[in-house]
Amino acid sequence: MTADGHTALCVLGTGLIGGSLLRAATAAGRAAWGYNRSAPGVAAARASGFDVTGDLPAALGRATDSDALIVVAVPMPAVDPMLDAIATHAPDCGLTDVVSVKAPVAAAVRRFGLEQRYVGGHPMAGTSESGWQATDPELFRGAAWAVGVDAGTDPHTWTRVTRLALDCGSVAVPVIASEHDRAVARISHLPHVLAEALAVAGARGGDLALGLAAGSFRDGTRVAGTAPDLVRAICEPNSDALLAVLDETLTALTEARAALDTSTSLDDLTAAGYAARRRYETAERWEIGDIEPGAEGWLERLQEAGRAGGVITRL
Amino acid sequence: MTADGHTALCVLGTGLIGGSLLRAATAAGRAAWGYNRSAPGVAAARASGFDVTGDLPAALGRATDSDALIVVAVPMPAVDPMLDAIATHAPDCGLTDVVSVKAPVAAAVRRFGLEQRYVGGHPMAGTSESGWQATDPELFRGAAWAVGVDAGTDPHTWTRVTRLALDCGSVAVPVIASEHDRAVARISHLPHVLAEALAVAGARGGDLALGLAAGSFRDGTRVAGTAPDLVRAICEPNSDALLAVLDETLTALTEARAALDTSTSLDDLTAAGYAARRRYETAERWEIGDIEPGAEGWLERLQEAGRAGGVITRL
Repeated sequence: MTADGHTALCVLGTGLIGGSLLRAATAAGRAAWGYNRSAPGVAAARASGFDVTGDLPAALGRATDSDALIVVAVPMPAVDPMLDAIATHAPDCGLTDVVSVKAPVAAAVRRFGLEQRYVGGHPMAGTSESGWQATDPELFRGAAWAVGVDAGTDPHTWTRVTRLALDCGSVAVPVIASEHDRAVARISHLPHVLAEALAVAGARGGDLALGLAAGSFRDGTRVAGTAPDLVRAICEPNSDALLAVLDETLTALTEARAALDTSTSLDDLTAAGYAARRRYETAERWEIGDIEPGAEGWLERLQEAGRAGGVITRL
Repeated sequence: MTADGHTALCVLGTGLIGGSLLRAATAAGRAAWGYNRSAPGVAAARASGFDVTGDLPAALGRATDSDALIVVAVPMPAVDPMLDAIATHAPDCGLTDVVSVKAPVAAAVRRFGLEQRYVGGHPMAGTSESGWQATDPELFRGAAWAVGVDAGTDPHTWTRVTRLALDCGSVAVPVIASEHDRAVARISHLPHVLAEALAVAGARGGDLALGLAAGSFRDGTRVAGTAPDLVRAICEPNSDALLAVLDETLTALTEARAALDTSTSLDDLTAAGYAARRRYETAERWEIGDIEPGAEGWLERLQEAGRAGGVITRL
């Protein structure tokens, strides 16, 4: 790697996120190659001119030879086999991932003894599409990219991972795994669950209801168009946090239902919802600045800044 | 009015929907004028070159003189005073509305003895903005515009109202009031309720969660940015239908919660949600055709066609 962290990249999984990452890193001038399990996926990426193989040991051997940063970019259910191969063929490489949950990945990484050089990541970007044909080098532009700052984080690997997020056009959000998982239960996994339920309610109204559906239904159900297996792979590994926020939401909806029934009023819900949406719309990212990876208390400082909406836009 | 139904229009209320209607009808070559309660609203519309007054009796007197079609374009809580004025100043004019529910408007119309010349309407278009500054003559382009076909509907007024929808670039969807209200509870009012609840759940995650929020949260909460009073005016008059679909959704979410808790699975919900969204995405409008307003069984035929996804694109 170069002194400023623009290391070579080995991307495992070239679907929407991994493939877009391969494109974005290449566009940023990185040496980058990938592995994909499916032959058609490999062929599609190669046809686009990218260096992708179906030979996992070869991709990982190359990572070891060039001290590349390895990026695990497969859904949670496919993570263990990847880590197993990494432990065999590239145990000393820097390691990150772009999986939608962080604590389960970190636990798996520990099971394979790879925690020394691991820093979790999660770019908050995606579409309801999937596969190489949906990849876009601009997918991460302006996105928040969660970067792990759990106790014991290696400053060197952390710098590499943060640099990757910045090179892809994202801002880095420092966050520990458990807090990440609770946050995404609220702003990513719950939206999926509610979108599915809303789609079902609409379709139960038949052709008439679907024919009258306009913007609120279209936007509210958009992510229900995501392949069910992918939604499950995103949400189910975070079931504890999702159950907690689902219970909170069931309570809020039950209270709103009671108010509508007894006093024909949605006053409380609409006031709270509007205030919440306004807070979201007006939230401003602020630059954390003066980051010294490895300095005394650097992780605690980043953890606190991330909780308060701070981001990193440069190193 | 001309023989083909391109009648003059008197629009009561020049907010987002009424103002856009005034613009669209004027652009389509109609003689059209409006009334607005607030002086700044009148001034804004006049500054844009539109014929809007704050003098309700004058606007309605003009409607009587020119046999105009009157369009009630105020939220449900403001409907009664409008109907009262119409009953006094323009009781013999054709009458429609663009209010978000139909059965409560029809009941109010009956209370004021105006049912002979009334045909309800509801263009399925809007944004989270409001007021004259948000108006857009293209707002209704391609939208579904519900047009009443309840028993006893006057064919002459029905033709006028349908013509208005078509002149604004919409397709007309024939539907009786009670079925409209049940349908929009599913595809418009429930989306509002879920968006509010989702916004609240996200904001409870603080700056970190809102900072990580991306497309699924943004789209899922979009309509929570609508002014709370407007959401209440849309949803509360339809509380019976909304309660029914809210109960159905609470049951579905509670079942999904149980499956997630006991078997860490969202299989049923994601499969059903995906199928529902695909049905919505692939639904195709079909032209009803050969419409003869007033012919034997015309209303029953249109009711049935509307239930099956049929639309009217020409008369």
